[in-house]
Amino acid sequence: MAKVLTSKEENYAQWYNDLVLKSGLAENSAVRGCMVIKPYGYAIWEKMKDELDRMFKETGHENAYFPLFIPKSFFSREAQHVEGFAKECAVVTHYRLKTDEENGGLMVDPDAKLEEELIVRPTSETIIWNTYKNWVQSYRDLPILINQWANVVRWEMRTRLFLRTTEFLWQEGHTAHATSKEAEEETIQMANIYAEFSEKFLGIPVVLGNKTESEKFAGAVETLTIEQLMQDGKALQGGTSHFLGQNFAKAFDVQFTNKEGKLDHVWATSWGMTTRMIGALIMAHSDNNGLVLPPMVAPIQVVIVPIYRGNDQFPAIAEVANRIKDQLKALGISVKFDDRDTQKPGWKFAEYELKGVPVRLALGPRDIENENVELARRDTLEKKVLPQEGIAEYIKSLLDEMQENIYKKALDFRSENTHRVDTWDELLDVLENKGGFALAHWDGTIESENKIKDTKATIRCIPLDGEEEDGRCIVSGKPSRKRVIIAKAY
Amino acid sequence: MAKVLTSKEENYAQWYNDLVLKSGLAENSAVRGCMVIKPYGYAIWEKMKDELDRMFKETGHENAYFPLFIPKSFFSREAQHVEGFAKECAVVTHYRLKTDEENGGLMVDPDAKLEEELIVRPTSETIIWNTYKNWVQSYRDLPILINQWANVVRWEMRTRLFLRTTEFLWQEGHTAHATSKEAEEETIQMANIYAEFSEKFLGIPVVLGNKTESEKFAGAVETLTIEQLMQDGKALQGGTSHFLGQNFAKAFDVQFTNKEGKLDHVWATSWGMTTRMIGALIMAHSDNNGLVLPPMVAPIQVVIVPIYRGNDQFPAIAEVANRIKDQLKALGISVKFDDRDTQKPGWKFAEYELKGVPVRLALGPRDIENENVELARRDTLEKKVLPQEGIAEYIKSLLDEMQENIYKKALDFRSENTHRVDTWDELLDVLENKGGFALAHWDGTIESENKIKDTKATIRCIPLDGEEEDGRCIVSGKPSRKRVIIAKAY
Repeated sequence: MAKVLTSKEENYAQWYNDLVLKSGLAENSAVRGCMVIKPYGYAIWEKMKDELDRMFKETGHENAYFPLFIPKSFFSREAQHVEGFAKECAVVTHYRLKTDEENGGLMVDPDAKLEEELIVRPTSETIIWNTYKNWVQSYRDLPILINQWANVVRWEMRTRLFLRTTEFLWQEGHTAHATSKEAEEETIQMANIYAEFSEKFLGIPVVLGNKTESEKFAGAVETLTIEQLMQDGKALQGGTSHFLGQNFAKAFDVQFTNKEGKLDHVWATSWGMTTRMIGALIMAHSDNNGLVLPPMVAPIQVVIVPIYRGNDQFPAIAEVANRIKDQLKALGISVKFDDRDTQKPGWKFAEYELKGVPVRLALGPRDIENENVELARRDTLEKKVLPQEGIAEYIKSLLDEMQENIYKKALDFRSENTHRVDTWDELLDVLENKGGFALAHWDGTIESENKIKDTKATIRCIPLDGEEEDGRCIVSGKPSRKRVIIAKAY
Repeated sequence: MAKVLTSKEENYAQWYNDLVLKSGLAENSAVRGCMVIKPYGYAIWEKMKDELDRMFKETGHENAYFPLFIPKSFFSREAQHVEGFAKECAVVTHYRLKTDEENGGLMVDPDAKLEEELIVRPTSETIIWNTYKNWVQSYRDLPILINQWANVVRWEMRTRLFLRTTEFLWQEGHTAHATSKEAEEETIQMANIYAEFSEKFLGIPVVLGNKTESEKFAGAVETLTIEQLMQDGKALQGGTSHFLGQNFAKAFDVQFTNKEGKLDHVWATSWGMTTRMIGALIMAHSDNNGLVLPPMVAPIQVVIVPIYRGNDQFPAIAEVANRIKDQLKALGISVKFDDRDTQKPGWKFAEYELKGVPVRLALGPRDIENENVELARRDTLEKKVLPQEGIAEYIKSLLDEMQENIYKKALDFRSENTHRVDTWDELLDVLENKGGFALAHWDGTIESENKIKDTKATIRCIPLDGEEEDGRCIVSGKPSRKRVIIAKAY
């Protein structure tokens, strides 16, 4: 069979792009920087969405929906926010087109100019806090625990499918609290939910930590991040949870009467995860044959491929295939019996490998005779012939094992690619030759951080569970009590 | 208790608006014509979405996601489409803001003008058919059965919460087929799904029929609609399914090689249902006490309110309440035990009536003593005292009965308000004095239709199951074989 993908070793970026296109996840659209998420890619997003939504609801959050458009002036209200956000965005200036009498086609109607331009939301803190203003009078109205599933737009100059697109899909949580403590706890709770989602569901280990002052969200007091390591040794920020203090409440004048009867500004958090996670999922696990999907996120968990010559062999195979399919379905496993006669088995094998279907069953005439079935697992590419009897239960526990195995493999990869560095030269060696996470002491100053940024790497986070130890900043030599993670990143 | 709502009889439009606001479904936002869908309203939308999504998937459809923005020139490609759609829309002309040095705040950066303006999608036929062009070569690539859940924007001058908003949420199906027959069958299948969804799930009876030439979708060969009757006697278009012929395939040059090896243009359908259905749900069933929600669409199906004086009475009540709650949950019924001590029982009763919770249980000390519970059903406002024993099963069948009863009531209302009219004067009498659907003969001409439109009413549809009979057009007196439905509409 012809090689479908550029290999990772040859060209990682090309491998990624090939894989996204050829496995049918997404493609570029006619609109610069905007992607089309194809059915298979969207099915993965639906799985992620369902799981996150369940986790959010379990912790007391509700969904709501706020406008796509934000009045331009709203962005100027929070001083840091405007610096970080409002610049590269889609601006709606008119509300009508008209027939172009001279050139044919359509033109913007100059009479339909908006008094104030509208920005297509790059994130919704401003419009939401402008709304919360009317919802909150007393501590009894708090907390507000709301999440929104939505599309957002940030005008990106260089885009890559899933990883950086002008329009993307995400969820954004926006909560309002009576006390700083409660808001800080919410910030940590949501970061922990992201960490758990990444590790248990996507099979991607994370380092949970604080962003530095210069890397935190525009308008936040504190940003928590989950940092993931990709197979090319670069970091990816998987989700962020922000403690916003009273910044947005002050900017939008959201006050409440507390239990003591005094007026105070409301405390806030926001947190988000995006379709970028599909990119992370691909880059964390996949190989040169195609996608490797952890069973929990796979739209199709098992595919059954019949192997036969001539139509008279087919009915007996189909009967067994359908029986196994029903058994699997009864156990809650998603399964597809690909009985198309327009494609050969070899083509189907390659196709489902490319699409990362965790388990493939093949059934031929001899399997029917011997009451066997051939099973191939996608993560290790191992094949086995097994009895049909009990195959569904076998697969059920195999899927659990594969979920675990895929995570373990990623965890081992991260261990192998996490380097403790104690000097500037050791850092450069990691960044230039080894890749991965460098664990280094840093003195906490912007000056030292900027020196690090000159290498094109950044401080990804200050790990929450990092151990205390005496050390010296690799830039300045000044004392430091904790290591940070430095890496090149997506 | 103070009356919360304006009564329907006093001012229907005000009643509707009061009800949407006070029951916490939605409110207007800072952006003209865009609403905020609040958690309770969004929970209803989630219920609708889940059910429709299930029905779409059951009939072989998959979800995908296409860009929010559409290049302006795309709209000019399909001649009728541009007439019907592209005029009142949000136009993105720039992609960057900058600091306004003179006046402070932000201004549009004149250097960041787009070469071609982008339109925020009012509907996605154009961008989707431009994409399908690359997906289809042969009949083997067909059918494409795709649905999208998305937000869309149509610049409306007069807006009303849910019923007509500048931005709204919807689903839009876009399918591609090898034959005209298959596409026509898909069009009817989806219209039937909408009809079933409306009747079985929302409890709103529909008339399924064809739109007239002048009322069909811009770019369609044929539009099927489901027409619903609201309690004020006005019609509401609940969902539409369009047979698009080869119009969009020709506009975007989407050709395929058919089984005979010949090139042909692809056949298309599109179909959509929107958050407007929440408006219909409210207007079809609710009363002067608040929402009346069919149990299937109610976010909370049962609420339990404890009635007690002093904290020593509470534990025994809570124990029974929690037991009943668990029993209901085990039967798949959503239930809330409102044990807040910040609100009185009377306040809670009114609140859940306003919110349309189908069943309310009240538990006081005497109920505990007698092992009883007081049950109130929202649709009839009846109250009963019942034994706690077996209450969960009782409620389960009661919810089914209520679902049926709410539909039946709406069906009876429609029967009472459907009038056969045989003269122009009889039509005017219905439109001016009675309201509801007028069933009248029409000669099929645009001239007669325009005369009808002069009354502010429209031909809502030509019912699919309308019986054949000899008649005369109420406008022209010319012969007609079938009655159409005429009504004022939302």
